Amino acid sequence: MPKDQRSASKTNPGRFFEDYSVGQVIEHAVPRTVSGGERALYHALYPARHAIQSSDEFARACGLHESPMDDMITFHTVFGKTVPDVSLNAVANLGYAEGRFHRPVWPGDTLRARSEVIGLKQNSSGKTGVVYVRTEGHNQRGQLVLEYVRWVMVRKNDVEAPAPEAVVPELSRVVDPATLILPEGLDFSGYDCTLAGEPHRLGDYAVGEVIDHVDGVTIEEAEHMMATRLWQNTSKTHFDVTPRADRRRLIYGGHVMSMARALSFNGLANAQMIVAINGGSHANPCFAGDTVRAWSEVLDTAETAAPGVGAIRLRLVAVNEDRRVGELKDAEGKYLPHVLLDLDYWALMPL
Amino acid sequence: MPKDQRSASKTNPGRFFEDYSVGQVIEHAVPRTVSGGERALYHALYPARHAIQSSDEFARACGLHESPMDDMITFHTVFGKTVPDVSLNAVANLGYAEGRFHRPVWPGDTLRARSEVIGLKQNSSGKTGVVYVRTEGHNQRGQLVLEYVRWVMVRKNDVEAPAPEAVVPELSRVVDPATLILPEGLDFSGYDCTLAGEPHRLGDYAVGEVIDHVDGVTIEEAEHMMATRLWQNTSKTHFDVTPRADRRRLIYGGHVMSMARALSFNGLANAQMIVAINGGSHANPCFAGDTVRAWSEVLDTAETAAPGVGAIRLRLVAVNEDRRVGELKDAEGKYLPHVLLDLDYWALMPL
Amino acid sequence: MPKDQRSASKTNPGRFFEDYSVGQVIEHAVPRTVSGGERALYHALYPARHAIQSSDEFARACGLHESPMDDMITFHTVFGKTVPDVSLNAVANLGYAEGRFHRPVWPGDTLRARSEVIGLKQNSSGKTGVVYVRTEGHNQRGQLVLEYVRWVMVRKNDVEAPAPEAVVPELSRVVDPATLILPEGLDFSGYDCTLAGEPHRLGDYAVGEVIDHVDGVTIEEAEHMMATRLWQNTSKTHFDVTPRADRRRLIYGGHVMSMARALSFNGLANAQMIVAINGGSHANPCFAGDTVRAWSEVLDTAETAAPGVGAIRLRLVAVNEDRRVGELKDAEGKYLPHVLLDLDYWALMPL
Repeated sequence: MPKDQRSASKTNPGRFFEDYSVGQVIEHAVPRTVSGGERALYHALYPARHAIQSSDEFARACGLHESPMDDMITFHTVFGKTVPDVSLNAVANLGYAEGRFHRPVWPGDTLRARSEVIGLKQNSSGKTGVVYVRTEGHNQRGQLVLEYVRWVMVRKNDVEAPAPEAVVPELSRVVDPATLILPEGLDFSGYDCTLAGEPHRLGDYAVGEVIDHVDGVTIEEAEHMMATRLWQNTSKTHFDVTPRADRRRLIYGGHVMSMARALSFNGLANAQMIVAINGGSHANPCFAGDTVRAWSEVLDTAETAAPGVGAIRLRLVAVNEDRRVGELKDAEGKYLPHVLLDLDYWALMPL
Repeated sequence: MPKDQRSASKTNPGRFFEDYSVGQVIEHAVPRTVSGGERALYHALYPARHAIQSSDEFARACGLHESPMDDMITFHTVFGKTVPDVSLNAVANLGYAEGRFHRPVWPGDTLRARSEVIGLKQNSSGKTGVVYVRTEGHNQRGQLVLEYVRWVMVRKNDVEAPAPEAVVPELSRVVDPATLILPEGLDFSGYDCTLAGEPHRLGDYAVGEVIDHVDGVTIEEAEHMMATRLWQNTSKTHFDVTPRADRRRLIYGGHVMSMARALSFNGLANAQMIVAINGGSHANPCFAGDTVRAWSEVLDTAETAAPGVGAIRLRLVAVNEDRRVGELKDAEGKYLPHVLLDLDYWALMPL
Repeated sequence: MPKDQRSASKTNPGRFFEDYSVGQVIEHAVPRTVSGGERALYHALYPARHAIQSSDEFARACGLHESPMDDMITFHTVFGKTVPDVSLNAVANLGYAEGRFHRPVWPGDTLRARSEVIGLKQNSSGKTGVVYVRTEGHNQRGQLVLEYVRWVMVRKNDVEAPAPEAVVPELSRVVDPATLILPEGLDFSGYDCTLAGEPHRLGDYAVGEVIDHVDGVTIEEAEHMMATRLWQNTSKTHFDVTPRADRRRLIYGGHVMSMARALSFNGLANAQMIVAINGGSHANPCFAGDTVRAWSEVLDTAETAAPGVGAIRLRLVAVNEDRRVGELKDAEGKYLPHVLLDLDYWALMPL
């Protein structure tokens, strides 16, 4: 056997469309312990200021024993685990649904991830197909911390491979607020708006309200690579200039999610914890040099069983420099070219 | 109400000159827990090597129970808290005085900040004014960790707003060394110069002596943005290329302070802890691509009550590439264009 | 005494060739406590995914009480301590030998370093000489954690200084696998290949096998400077654009070592811990903008006394973009221009 073939057999080529089957369960590799170092890096990489994740004292005043890891750290860590098995040969990351945070991740927790293939549909071209997976993240006690559905377009390796029977899962358009899972002990009845940074409580937000988060961050290569590596996301396209003729690195969509979420502090300082991800689209690619801004639209509000705690459903839109706040799609329903991210989520907010 | 107006009301426009009044107390938002992650990042962002902050063992040999956070981490964290309330609409950061570190910050501590307006003076243009604040940082036990006076030039929003009665506080030009507060238990009687990195004790420095710290660091955008975000400093000018016609980002003055202080290890390895900031000026703006160098001048020395511990008063000057060590101002008393920082502080040094 | 001269005497000029003598022992300054923050930064700076260093749980399943610091963190920290004393005036870092890791470094450990000069040989030019040092790193309990021999070419300050008697130490070409020191308690008998990321055990690798690690990372200035500073490496050439006419910063060779080692996960996920460094050459300089790739060659395998634990000897080669896997030197035995690193080491792998 020539050397190159032999060596090729040791490395991970990723899965191709024909390698998936509905019902298949994939245990993702390399569990990861997250702690104060990851927290500090999150604060260095994003202008994150939500008080529960910034201050142990503030978290305690809200009924938690210490500051939990930012919910997006949980999301990125679990997502990163899935990349070698789900999206190494992906052409596009198409969407998210039914994302639910089941419990906070605490400093010192170790996360694992597992995905089940819940849908498959070959595209009419015969060269690619859509793979739907339901991914779960568990902590070291085997407790579920996060689940979400994600679908990606994946290349076929052998275009002659027969198309599987199409299975397209029925997915909720939005997580029912009655089913939101709240962190144990969470209590906003003594919530301190001064320390949190803004006076606006749930009742101050109206459905349909649009908030321009004002601030912008111009993205650097070193930062998005450090962030993406921190979550052990191995997608080549984020790190290596050689695959593209223009020698640009495509920025991990999750970097834009965290950047936009952090920017949304200005106007949504009290949207403290993310408890569900209803949907999300990476509308257009983001590259170093882009200046990311964000705006939010209030989609819904709800009550919860926890004292003083309400829920707010938000559309979070990241844009590239252009400030046309509130404009999202063109007449044909296609995202405008300056839109980077359209994320629909539930957060918790004091009543 | 049109959407844009409504949304504008949710975000922080910052305070304008006419929004301040003498005696006003502002509780700054978003307390922050700092720990080993922030310490590691500080070492990654600056060439910091002072042994007390680098090694738990060295700190213990100096009478402390573990390595405290770098004093500049305390300063930046407290300073960062004040930005949304004090300097979001600032035209210039004019000066510092009467800075005193009251006790170390330890890993796991949570910092809060509060400022009192102690002076106001409208400028003759009628478009801006100078705001003087005394800022205090407290830990989670309510103990004072840092206080300092800072004055900034702030824009008026309504140029027709009447000028307030001018109040200009009388500020000490230097913190009296007899009033320096030393970390509890600090003892340099068994100080190990070999481990600390240099043999020079307080008696080896002469007032008037000038030290060229030799080394230089060429600044990158990603690094100053990570540093500035780490302290939750929200000043737009550090992150967003769009406000300036030349699309440059102004570097947070504190980044230059920490860079220069770290560079000063080479020649001042035993100037271990900063206990007072007598004054400081950000003489000229710093941009990515600048190569920061530093030199120090010994301004004074003093004894302290702690065993083996002396105090050294230093002028720390950061310059951009140009090595004319010792040259600071032109004939008119204006800072030379290559000078970035002129900082006057007290540090502790073994006798 | 003029000011400039006096100040020069306070800073570290580094040692020149004539300042070394065989038998000389140098205690390096500034001990360093490493912890979770350094670990998180390591994961942000390199695509490191070896499971023992990523997950406390995985480490426990392998008989360790928690996840140890990455072996390269130990190496870089000890190496960094030696720079001000050994390589500040080095022209070239010539080689490594007899590197042995004696025990893991755990979060919270404090490292010190000491070097003994074991060889000296002036070059025929009379302007430089080769200095051989054996460096040891110790933890806060005085236990040896790492030792290695390194030789560097150092400038003479005074070319008239007489040449010392040439002493060239006899160095092993490879650490005898029978003498490898294994972490106490290490047990791979229940090793989980699924969680580790690859199914290949020691028996699946054949001597002579070459593995292309496929992935590449394009290097940024901010990243290599943050890494190099994190280890308190003070070599000016990594940070300051002014010394070179082309204003480029030479990247710390250890940055390339860690990058290549992390990239080698893809194909060597089970080469879990580095226990010895047999040799190493920084074949050509690396600069920001280079895209680092890596390939490995299996040089040997061995058994160990620990349950289920074997050892694999690997040549790890880092290259700049060019993918000619397996090509190392030209007909004259000179490294090809695209080769950055040639490292020979022993790692532990499940049988």
